[in-house]
Amino acid sequence: MAEKTNYNFSVAPEKVDFMLHATIESLCSDILNVAGVDAKHKGISADVLMQQNRSWVLSRLSVELDRQPKQYEEYGILTWVNPHTSRLISTRNFELSDSEGKQFGRAVSQWCVIDFEKRMPVSLEEVEHLFTDKFCDAPSPCEAPRKVRGIEPSVTRKHEVRYSDIDFNRHVNTMRYIRMMLNTLPIEYLTEPRPLRLDIHFAKECRLGEVLTIGYEQRENLSLFEIRNGEDAVACTAAIEWK
Amino acid sequence: MAEKTNYNFSVAPEKVDFMLHATIESLCSDILNVAGVDAKHKGISADVLMQQNRSWVLSRLSVELDRQPKQYEEYGILTWVNPHTSRLISTRNFELSDSEGKQFGRAVSQWCVIDFEKRMPVSLEEVEHLFTDKFCDAPSPCEAPRKVRGIEPSVTRKHEVRYSDIDFNRHVNTMRYIRMMLNTLPIEYLTEPRPLRLDIHFAKECRLGEVLTIGYEQRENLSLFEIRNGEDAVACTAAIEWK
Repeated sequence: MAEKTNYNFSVAPEKVDFMLHATIESLCSDILNVAGVDAKHKGISADVLMQQNRSWVLSRLSVELDRQPKQYEEYGILTWVNPHTSRLISTRNFELSDSEGKQFGRAVSQWCVIDFEKRMPVSLEEVEHLFTDKFCDAPSPCEAPRKVRGIEPSVTRKHEVRYSDIDFNRHVNTMRYIRMMLNTLPIEYLTEPRPLRLDIHFAKECRLGEVLTIGYEQRENLSLFEIRNGEDAVACTAAIEWK
Repeated sequence: MAEKTNYNFSVAPEKVDFMLHATIESLCSDILNVAGVDAKHKGISADVLMQQNRSWVLSRLSVELDRQPKQYEEYGILTWVNPHTSRLISTRNFELSDSEGKQFGRAVSQWCVIDFEKRMPVSLEEVEHLFTDKFCDAPSPCEAPRKVRGIEPSVTRKHEVRYSDIDFNRHVNTMRYIRMMLNTLPIEYLTEPRPLRLDIHFAKECRLGEVLTIGYEQRENLSLFEIRNGEDAVACTAAIEWK
């Protein structure tokens, strides 16, 4: 069995928004960076899977933030991978704590292994040997990602995928979807930071040059988003619950 | 006389582009962060000027990059302020070096002190007392920012200023202008990193909700940009010379 592992961060000025708090995008980015670095340390990273023409793909993410740390604040992210209980989904957990050890955030991520040749998810049984002694059987720190469906946008915006949006695969960087969504939200929701829960589901990759449509619907305390690709297929959906 | 002061950085994954090199935007962001932190350490920061309802405003910046460091690479930024030779402009210099001490970049920034009440630049003589022993009389490491004028755009794009673009003043974050420009450049210029020089001139502030027009002209090895605000006034101009 592996232990939970901690990684330290600080809120550099480029990570804050106009309220001088770390953006949701930057905190999610740190969470994903931790996933990448920890997987590398444990020998279960995309690099290892690539030897068989496979890679990890992030499918769903839930993030609860009691607060967003301020500029220059230091914090830690604790991470661990649960033993697989699903044939296709691997669960990696995160706890975010301030420099005094007080927890202010939690996240649960769900990943698939994709075979690039077949363009299909692979059964985790095929990679189980990599995980010997890599699991930590501690419960997830919050509810797993919820499904986000049935969004009926009342506001839509267009966004053309450009240079600053893409990753090394020339696909839209996962975190950019969050940026596009927050850029569609009325600014009033972002002037008073308050506890929130984000559920996000990545369904399709978007590419350089595609014109995306970001749809937004407010349903009571839920801000709902869907991003459609250039062919009008749903690429990403999300909900922010304001607490 | 003060010494040159060094600050260390590493290229976190959120700082790279699809070529896995630190973006020009992220390197310029680090340069400006160093300016802010070093000014704070030396007691010449915007906080101190704010006591008299004044602040530093970045007017022009020149940056030379022999190369852009790779993801996870470590590097240092050395900074110093020159004795004032102009009544209105303070010059702060930067040298970027890799972990082995090899210099790969240089920058010169020119700043004004603005009086918020009069909305006018202040003579540096009025703040000269702050600078006792804070100057370092070493020459700038590269040519001061050049003027960028007479751009005749052959390509234009629109960009509405949204949440992720603004700083704590609700003005467009200085670094976002660079992002907008690179997002307008044909992607081919960014697939083969090569030495470059950037000259950028900040003329006007842009605000949340304004629809900006980004114009681009290619003139031999010069990529020229101008950004116009919602009233069609030039807010920012820049040139990238590809070497």
